[in-house]
Parts: sequence; C-alpha cells; structure tokens
Amino acid sequence: MRETEIIDRIRLQSRKNYRHKTLIRGIGDDCAILRPSAGEDLVFTSDFVLEDRHFTLATHSAGAIGEKALARSLSDLAAMGAEPVFCLVSLAVPAKLGAVFVGRFYKGLLRIASKYSISLAGGDLARFDKVIADVMCCGRVPRGKSLLRSAAKPGQRIYVTGKLGTAAHAFTAGKPILPVPRIETGIALRKLGVSAAIDLSDGLSLDLARLCQESQVSAEISSHLLPIARHATLGEALHGGEDYELLFTAAPQVNVPSAVGKLPIREIGRVARGRPGVVLMDGNPLQSKGFDHFA
Amino acid sequence: MRETEIIDRIRLQSRKNYRHKTLIRGIGDDCAILRPSAGEDLVFTSDFVLEDRHFTLATHSAGAIGEKALARSLSDLAAMGAEPVFCLVSLAVPAKLGAVFVGRFYKGLLRIASKYSISLAGGDLARFDKVIADVMCCGRVPRGKSLLRSAAKPGQRIYVTGKLGTAAHAFTAGKPILPVPRIETGIALRKLGVSAAIDLSDGLSLDLARLCQESQVSAEISSHLLPIARHATLGEALHGGEDYELLFTAAPQVNVPSAVGKLPIREIGRVARGRPGVVLMDGNPLQSKGFDHFA
Repeated sequence: MRETEIIDRIRLQSRKNYRHKTLIRGIGDDCAILRPSAGEDLVFTSDFVLEDRHFTLATHSAGAIGEKALARSLSDLAAMGAEPVFCLVSLAVPAKLGAVFVGRFYKGLLRIASKYSISLAGGDLARFDKVIADVMCCGRVPRGKSLLRSAAKPGQRIYVTGKLGTAAHAFTAGKPILPVPRIETGIALRKLGVSAAIDLSDGLSLDLARLCQESQVSAEISSHLLPIARHATLGEALHGGEDYELLFTAAPQVNVPSAVGKLPIREIGRVARGRPGVVLMDGNPLQSKGFDHFA
Repeated sequence: MRETEIIDRIRLQSRKNYRHKTLIRGIGDDCAILRPSAGEDLVFTSDFVLEDRHFTLATHSAGAIGEKALARSLSDLAAMGAEPVFCLVSLAVPAKLGAVFVGRFYKGLLRIASKYSISLAGGDLARFDKVIADVMCCGRVPRGKSLLRSAAKPGQRIYVTGKLGTAAHAFTAGKPILPVPRIETGIALRKLGVSAAIDLSDGLSLDLARLCQESQVSAEISSHLLPIARHATLGEALHGGEDYELLFTAAPQVNVPSAVGKLPIREIGRVARGRPGVVLMDGNPLQSKGFDHFA
C-alpha cells in the first residue's frame, strides 16, 4: 500500500471521530487550521514514545502504542487544567510492519482521542527501522487560568492524585504501562482555584523538585502521607516514572476535596520558603532519583 | 550532564532568541502558552527528520540537522501563506553524542528560528540509538486567508517558484540538502490573491497530483516551461523530492510577477476540468514517481 492510500485511510477514520468546532481544517493540507475562540489561551506540548525506551513490541500491541502515545501528551494538558482540542501525530514504522501496524496504531490512538474529545488534525508518516511516534497536543484554557509550575507559594499545601508507584511496580512485573491522563481532574482543580500543577511523568522526587525550582520555593513532605500503590515500595512511589498523576499546590483556604470523581486526592506536605528546588522528606533532603534520559 | 541541565541551557538560548508577542510562556512548564490575536487563524504542521532517511551523520553536522529539521516544517507554513509564530522540537540522540551534539543541533535550529522570526517554545528530549527530530510549527494567517490545496479551479494558471531538481541533483552528488523555506514568498503570494498552494517536498509529479486531488481538478503542464535546475535532469525536476519550492495556482486576472525578491516564478501550465488528481504533461499522463515512504 502506498503512503497516500494509508494517509487517506487515516483521514477517513479521523473524520468519523470527534471534531472540535474550532478546528476548521484537519488532515489533507500542508497544515491544519484552527480558528481560536476569543478569551482563551491555547497550550501546546509534544512527547515522544520510542521503541525499546517507552515500550517494546513484545509488551505493547500497535493499538496500545497508539493509546500510550496520545495519553502521554494528554497528561501534559491535564497538568495545565486544559480542555483537549486537537493533536498532530508523527509516526515512523519499519517497512515490514507496514500498513496493518499503522492502521492498528491509529485505531488505538483514535479510541483515546474519542474518549478525551480531541481531534486528530494531521502529522507525518515515515518509514524507519524502529517504531517511533511524537504526539503534539493542543488544549484550551480560559485566558490567564492555566495551572503553572511557577505558581506555588510558601504556606500552600501540596497534593497528589491517585496512587504513586503504580507504573514502576507494573514495569518491574513486566506489564504494559498505559497512562490515564487526568484531564477531567485537571479541569476540576483549575475551576476549584488551585495554584501550581505538574504531571508526574518522571517520578515524584524529580517532578516536585522541578515544580519547586520553577516557583523558587522548597517543599516539605511526609513519607507517611504518601498514597503508595498496592505492592509498590516507597522507592517506587518516590522515584518511579510514568504514573501520570497530578501533583499540585493550593492555598490553605481552598477547599480541596478528598476525591474528584473516583480519583482520591491526598495532601502530602507544604510549600516552604527555602532553597529553591529543594525537597525535604521527614525533615531530610530528598534526592531527585526520577527518570533522567541523560543521567 | 543531566537532562535538566541540558534543557536549562536550551531554555537560556531560546530566551535570547526571537520571542513572538503572542507566546506568553515558552520552555519550562508542562505546556507552552499562546494567547491568540483576534481575527487570525492559526496553522499547524509537524515533520520528522530521521537519521539515514533524511540525513546521515556523514553528510550533515549537528547544526545542519537542526537547520533542516526546522526548515522542513517552516516550508509547510510557507505553503499556507502563514507568518511563523512558534515551534516545538522533539529531539532524540544516542548517549555517545550527548550534550555537545544537542547543543550544536539547537544552535543550528535557533539560527534558522532567528532568521524566520519563530520562537522555540518547548518540546521533548530523549535518548535513542539514532538521531531523530520532529518539529511542530505554528503560523498565523488573517482569518480565512490560508492558501489551501483544495482551492484550485479549472482555468487557473499553475506556477512554481525557483528551480526544480536542485535537491535531487545535490543528493546524487552526495551534497547535504538544506531546504530554504519560502516564507516571504508565501506571504507575498497570499497578499497577491493567489488560490491554491502546496510546497514541493516529495517531487512535482506527486505534489501536483495531490493538489489536483484535493481540488478535484486535473492539470496540464508543459515540459518546456519547467524551470529545471542547472545540471539536473527532467526526471530529477519532475520526481525529485526536497526542493521545497512553492507550487501554486492563480486566476488569469491575478497579476503574478516574474519574481518575488530574487526568487523567479514560472508559469508551467493550467488547471483543467478532468479526472481529479490526473496530471498531463505535453498531453500525456504523468506518473507520480515522487518520494513515497511506503511504495
């Protein structure tokens, strides 16, 4: 099958899927076209999923890779409190996997797209000796209301959604990791008036340090407050990547609920005046041992 | 060097570079934030550059790869008549190339970014066994004024900028191909009131057929009118990829100049009522032999 036919097929699939009203042209031109609504900011992120780094063909089906590729980027929208709008998907696959693999990848991706109401608007398709995908997601937020990493202030409380160490433990057990982007929760938290937020892609210790660095504050957390996943160790909860839960801060007067829908929310510590980027756990400095591609 | 330090360095470089006024937050958060201007459409594209497909480490320096990665995506903005706004860059490199390679890649990319006034707003950085990059570009166009592939009408004239076969000939000669995105020309043509446009990334025969397919028209071109690059063959001019010139159509009453700046523009044929997607050259059907990743 030729590239043009494969793209035509993806285009047909994408048309049957959700289409955001501001997306006035999707697949089929040199660029997708968006007509932004007044009074809104647009947020943008892109994330790789690479064979033998983020998945293997042994542990993930083509559909699961498509799901994961989109879910990873959606998680960044969730961390801004954004509503998904559209995505661009760049995909490269080995010739031997061919059109069947591409079709299944997109079927998986579009299942997630449909679930989170995001339009597939374009991208790139190439041949390569390994499977690689890069997904760019665009979301929208009422003007000036994005949840920033830099908005944490001393005295605020630190919260985390869900359980920590889930993905690290699944990885150890050889199970595929399919992130669940916390889109609804992010929007709910933004409406609630929380301050800073980040998604936990590289582990609590590293991502909390990043949030503190951006806000020029330090953090004090307590190990006994951490919502550790069943069977996971404290180390997996602190340093394990790919949990894709939301970490956020809120002023004491904000009434943060104990759950959003079925997703529990747990207070784990306080933002403090202190050396920027430093995290103390039970009074001792916590090393950032989260995932680092170049460490 | 750790990933965080590498990103901090890119962030510093990007801050010194051009920053579009609508980009209110660049590198450093989960997402970049854009505050769109009223009365404008935004256009989006993404393109891979992959080691041993679009370049080799023998023919392209790290800086040249960065330049090429951005230039390829910019060319799609040019084909819409768009003004560049910002880009997201996803880059993966082998560990052995490390931070030095990443620094040089971004130096090359930012040189092009500066030249075309586009802001580096974010992206992703990962380790992989080959060098791969995916660049997403966002541009802006006055509302409803984007140059579409689907806007060609029977009776319009077909034009092409620059020379054809330049890249194919350079490739045969083992020289690096550094595309020059026709941003200024695209904007000038849009203001002039031309109709349909596409950039020549995969060869005239394939890209003209694509434009015709989207517009549901056919095309009639003449071989003696083609602006063939010096030393290039007719085959290279017709089917060679990566020229990144603009192919466009305009109604007969539009006064298309013979050059925009120093870039020559040549009329090569007419849009016709006929089987959609078919291109006739000198009266005979022209096969689409342009670059196809999956052919």
